[in-house]
Amino acid sequence: MKLHTLAAAALLSSGAFAQSAAQPATAMPAAQAAAPAPASLGGLQFLYGSGEAAALSRQTYAALEAYALAQAARRPADSVVLAQGATLAAPAYVPCGDKPFAAVFDIDETVILNTGLMHSRALGPGAARDGTVLPVPGAVEAIRALKAAGITPIYNTNRTTNMADGVVTALVSVGLEAPVHGETLFFNGDDALRGNKDGRRATIAAKWCVVAMAGDQLGDFSEMFNHLQPVAERRRVAMDGAIGALWGRGWFTLPNTAYGTALEGTLAEIFPAATANDNTKDAR
Amino acid sequence: MKLHTLAAAALLSSGAFAQSAAQPATAMPAAQAAAPAPASLGGLQFLYGSGEAAALSRQTYAALEAYALAQAARRPADSVVLAQGATLAAPAYVPCGDKPFAAVFDIDETVILNTGLMHSRALGPGAARDGTVLPVPGAVEAIRALKAAGITPIYNTNRTTNMADGVVTALVSVGLEAPVHGETLFFNGDDALRGNKDGRRATIAAKWCVVAMAGDQLGDFSEMFNHLQPVAERRRVAMDGAIGALWGRGWFTLPNTAYGTALEGTLAEIFPAATANDNTKDAR
Repeated sequence: MKLHTLAAAALLSSGAFAQSAAQPATAMPAAQAAAPAPASLGGLQFLYGSGEAAALSRQTYAALEAYALAQAARRPADSVVLAQGATLAAPAYVPCGDKPFAAVFDIDETVILNTGLMHSRALGPGAARDGTVLPVPGAVEAIRALKAAGITPIYNTNRTTNMADGVVTALVSVGLEAPVHGETLFFNGDDALRGNKDGRRATIAAKWCVVAMAGDQLGDFSEMFNHLQPVAERRRVAMDGAIGALWGRGWFTLPNTAYGTALEGTLAEIFPAATANDNTKDAR
Repeated sequence: MKLHTLAAAALLSSGAFAQSAAQPATAMPAAQAAAPAPASLGGLQFLYGSGEAAALSRQTYAALEAYALAQAARRPADSVVLAQGATLAAPAYVPCGDKPFAAVFDIDETVILNTGLMHSRALGPGAARDGTVLPVPGAVEAIRALKAAGITPIYNTNRTTNMADGVVTALVSVGLEAPVHGETLFFNGDDALRGNKDGRRATIAAKWCVVAMAGDQLGDFSEMFNHLQPVAERRRVAMDGAIGALWGRGWFTLPNTAYGTALEGTLAEIFPAATANDNTKDAR
């Protein structure tokens, strides 16, 4: 098989494109990985085709850049990585001390867009493999600005270690400096937690003062989100309280409507019966 | 018919939920409006069910609030409303002078989530009408903070004037102050441009120094986006150049994966043949 076919097949079988992580993260079964659920056309239109998603991404990276630079200038006491034993209800963070500054980025659909893979997958079996990768709008400029300000970009991906070369190539192809595995690049398989990124975050935060994190799925910020049920509870926890206040202030989400943990739930789970407001009650 | 059924039917027939505005905006034909294309399950999962979309919305409103307050404190020379004759390639803005500060908000899926309508639409014909409305995460807190800082919230919706009461009720039901039609609330039908919001923006900018705008579709910022073809060109214009730099710095996008102008294009249009990067070329 051609290298890009191997790479694409490996990408499909890695945890990076797991359709569901609402359970504790596990390696994606190979048979399931070979034929993942196709992304809806609307999901592809939004993420890869729309000016609206491009605007959202530019906006996110503008906010991340401004926030990270401001934080580095003021030398914060705390990082934005949750500490061991912290809960989402009562978050606590790994302290910064004098550690050098860093920002942690997921890769797929956070820094790069896997347009080729998603296109060929949508075309169906028999479509030629396509390794085209594009930058998420705004990502490269923001990461370069962070680097210039002394904030080291560190990549934390759920691709597996056998895909290391492909990942570095992809990052370089969109104009980023090649990261170094074990220093500024971490994979699923680097520790025993596999697709649970908490351990790798702890490893990174032990050495770096992490001032910002970016991802397209809540597991890019804490594994605890992957254990919340039902869908409405997970949304509530993400939206409210101390966690809700983090978005745009250390934690930065990029949209992903093609695959991943955002695409969960039956109609009844998305629209639970208890409603906050019914404006018909007050209609005149 | 019950009032909420009337309201829901009127909402469906208004321009607010037009599936396509890639052409010059026109009133949605009644027959087409009676049975709009259903949102994909993935679109509903993402926008109404996911913690990820809630995070994106919180993040957007955090950035909008910080930006608007900072701008009001420094009294900018220019607003963020494009001036008459400005182009997307060479934007120019309505000057602020000494006008009082304001921020302009679309309503549907920008400030409020039409969860009841989308749920009943997804359940199909015969489903009971549901007027449940929820706030877009972060919207109410941000708008209140702007108001407290002397920045007046102004709503600019493509709902039609016959739906005015329902809109005011919906905004009040999520905790916002009732706006006043013609002062702080503008509709499709307020001028001859109908669903083209440019005229209403000009009316607003003549009186107010608009420091921020929020919307879920590019037409909430300029009608010119509704005339760009094909999909990839519209995305390019939104993403790059002077317009690309506005996102997060005056223009703020909320995600909408259920309906609207982001959901356009065939596979060939979403993934055009000319590709920027193919990382297989450099693979070792």
